[in-house]
Amino acid sequence: MIKTLTGTTDFIESLRGKKASFMLALSNTKTANIEGITQAGIPGMIHLTPTLDSEFLCTGEVRSLDNIAKTPKGVPTPALMTRGMHLLSPFGRIELLDLGLEVKPKISYFKLHSFDIEPSESIAKGADIDAKRLFEKGVNFGQSYICKDEYIILGESVPSGTTTATATALGLGYKVDGYFSSSFKNVPSSIKQDTLKSALSNIENRDDIFAILGKVGDNMLIFNAGFILGLNNRVPLVLAGGTQMACVLLVVDKILELMGGTIETSNLALCTTKWVAKDENSDIEALLNLPKFSINSYYADFDFSLSDHPALKLYDKGEAKEGVGAGGALMYGFLNGVSKEQITDEVERFLG
Amino acid sequence: MIKTLTGTTDFIESLRGKKASFMLALSNTKTANIEGITQAGIPGMIHLTPTLDSEFLCTGEVRSLDNIAKTPKGVPTPALMTRGMHLLSPFGRIELLDLGLEVKPKISYFKLHSFDIEPSESIAKGADIDAKRLFEKGVNFGQSYICKDEYIILGESVPSGTTTATATALGLGYKVDGYFSSSFKNVPSSIKQDTLKSALSNIENRDDIFAILGKVGDNMLIFNAGFILGLNNRVPLVLAGGTQMACVLLVVDKILELMGGTIETSNLALCTTKWVAKDENSDIEALLNLPKFSINSYYADFDFSLSDHPALKLYDKGEAKEGVGAGGALMYGFLNGVSKEQITDEVERFLG
Repeated sequence: MIKTLTGTTDFIESLRGKKASFMLALSNTKTANIEGITQAGIPGMIHLTPTLDSEFLCTGEVRSLDNIAKTPKGVPTPALMTRGMHLLSPFGRIELLDLGLEVKPKISYFKLHSFDIEPSESIAKGADIDAKRLFEKGVNFGQSYICKDEYIILGESVPSGTTTATATALGLGYKVDGYFSSSFKNVPSSIKQDTLKSALSNIENRDDIFAILGKVGDNMLIFNAGFILGLNNRVPLVLAGGTQMACVLLVVDKILELMGGTIETSNLALCTTKWVAKDENSDIEALLNLPKFSINSYYADFDFSLSDHPALKLYDKGEAKEGVGAGGALMYGFLNGVSKEQITDEVERFLG
Repeated sequence: MIKTLTGTTDFIESLRGKKASFMLALSNTKTANIEGITQAGIPGMIHLTPTLDSEFLCTGEVRSLDNIAKTPKGVPTPALMTRGMHLLSPFGRIELLDLGLEVKPKISYFKLHSFDIEPSESIAKGADIDAKRLFEKGVNFGQSYICKDEYIILGESVPSGTTTATATALGLGYKVDGYFSSSFKNVPSSIKQDTLKSALSNIENRDDIFAILGKVGDNMLIFNAGFILGLNNRVPLVLAGGTQMACVLLVVDKILELMGGTIETSNLALCTTKWVAKDENSDIEALLNLPKFSINSYYADFDFSLSDHPALKLYDKGEAKEGVGAGGALMYGFLNGVSKEQITDEVERFLG
C-alpha cells in the first residue's frame, strides 16, 4: 500500500504503528491572485484556502467561509483525505505553522506556531521576502522543536505554490523542465510561463541565494529548508507533499552548497500521493534525484477507484493531486492498519 | 478469541488496547543441519530461516534469498501471521535480538540488538555454548532494557529449537516425555531420539546447570532465561511461543533452584497458538505446570477454517504450529479489535 520511489522501504516500515505529529505549514503568496494561475480554491477567495484547510483539518468545520474550498471544477480540497485519516487513525497531535497567512484560522486549543511572518508578494513583481531572516527562523524552530510523538509529518497549504516552487528551482539554477506539477490537469501554460518569466527577470547577476529566494520563492519553501537544517536529522521527518516539498529539498541542497556543508538525511523522507507519483506532466523522482544528498521517498498507493462520487473521480482524472499533506496522511493511515475501503468511505461521507 | 491455559484471563485483558513492542529472538544452532530433524525452512538453507523471517516481518520483503521460507511440504512460515497482524494492528515497534545468526538480516532502521554471540554447535556433539556468560548477557539486557511501549511480546525463530528445548528439559532433569512439540506432524522420532540420546550422553555427573545448558541447549533458551530474570517483572512480558518458550521457563526455574531464589511472575505470561495448545503429540500445559512459580498462559483461538488455501490448511492438519511469535501476534491482534476474517484475508494476500 506504500510504494517506494527512491531509497528503500526500511525507513517507512520502521515507522509502522508509531504515532506522528502532523504539522501543517500555511502561507499566502500574492502570486495566487494572478487570475487563472491556480485552482486551489474559490476564485476571489484563493487566499483563504490555507485558513479553511487548517480549520477543517483540526475541527471538521469551515469557519472563515461558508464552504470548504473547492476548485471551480468542483474538485474538493485534499484536506478531506487528511481529515479523514485523522478520524480513522488519529495523529498524535496537529500543529499549525503560520508562515504568513492573510487570515488566521479561527481555532482554539490547537498549537499555532507564529513567527511574525507576513504573506509574500507576487513573484511576478518580486516576492519581497527577507529570505535570510525567514530561513534563520526556520533553523531556530528546527533546533528548538520538541517532538511529542515519534516522528513528524509535515504538510503544506500554499495556493499557487507549484508556481513559486518552479520559479525557485529555476532561479536556483536547476534544470527542471517538465519536472513540476500543478493543481491543474491542463496546466494553463501561458499564464504560468508569463509569471515565471517575469519572476526570473527580476534576478540579477550579483544576487546571492537568499536574494534569489527573496524574489522568486515563497515563505513555505524558505522556512522549511531552514526547519530541516535546524532539525538536523534529530527526529524522523516525513515531508508530506509533492513537487513543492521536493523543491524545499532543492533549497536545502543549494544552501548546503553555498555553506560548503552536508546533511545527514537518514531520518528524512518524502511521501506523496499516487496522483503526483504517476503524473505525466511532472517528474517528482527526477526532482528528488537532483540534490547531492540522497533521500527515501514513497507514495501512498491510493486512488478513488472504489468510489463512484464524481467529485472524487476528478482526482483520478488528474484534476487535483496533492496538498494539506494528503500523501503523508494516507501513508500514516496505511502504516496504522487503515484500508483503502475505509478511507474511501470516510472521504465520501464528507461530501454527503 | 483468547483462551486461558493456566491462571486467569485478567493479565491478558489488562493489556487490551495497549501498544506492545515486538521483540524477535533469532538464533542458529547447527543441530538444524542434521538431515530431517526440522522442517522449519528450505533443506540446505535451514540456517537462513531466522534471517528471512526477520526480514519479512520488518519490511514485507525477503532479501537474503529469493523466496520466503517454506517447509518441503509447502507450509509457509508462521511469519506470515505475525507480519499480517503487524499490518492490521501494528506493534509499537519491532526489535531484533541477534542471539547468534549465521547471516545477518539485510535491514536498516530497525533496532538490531547485538551481543557478540556466535551460532551454537549441534547438541549431538555438545553445543559448545559458554552458557554462564550468555545467561549473564541476557540478565544485563533485561536489567537495562527500556520498553518504549506498554509491554513486550517476545517471539523466536530458531530452527530445530524444539529438539534443543527437549534436550534441555531432559538434561535439567525434568520428566517431559510426550510434552514437547515439533514443527512436524509426524515427528521423525528416530532422528530426534538419536540426537537427544547423543546430546544427553555428553552430560557428565559433575556438570552444573550451566555446563549442562552449554552442552544441550541453544542460545535463545539460555539468553531469554537471563532476560526474564534481569527484567524481573518490571515490564509486562508475553512469551510468544510454544514448547520452546515453556522450556525457557524451565531454565529460569532451574537457575532459581540453584540460586535458592524466587521470582515474581505477575507480569509474565506465555501465549501460543491453538495448534500448539491442541496438539495431541505434546502437552504445553503440563510443561507450564512444572516450574515452582505459577504463570498465566493463553492461546489465540485462531485457525484457518475460514480459508480454502491448501498451504494454510496444512496448519489445521498439524503440519506447522508456531514460530516467529505467531501466537502472541494473533493475541495482540485480538486484543486490538482485529477479527479472524481480517487475519485470514491478510495472510491469504501474501500467498497471492
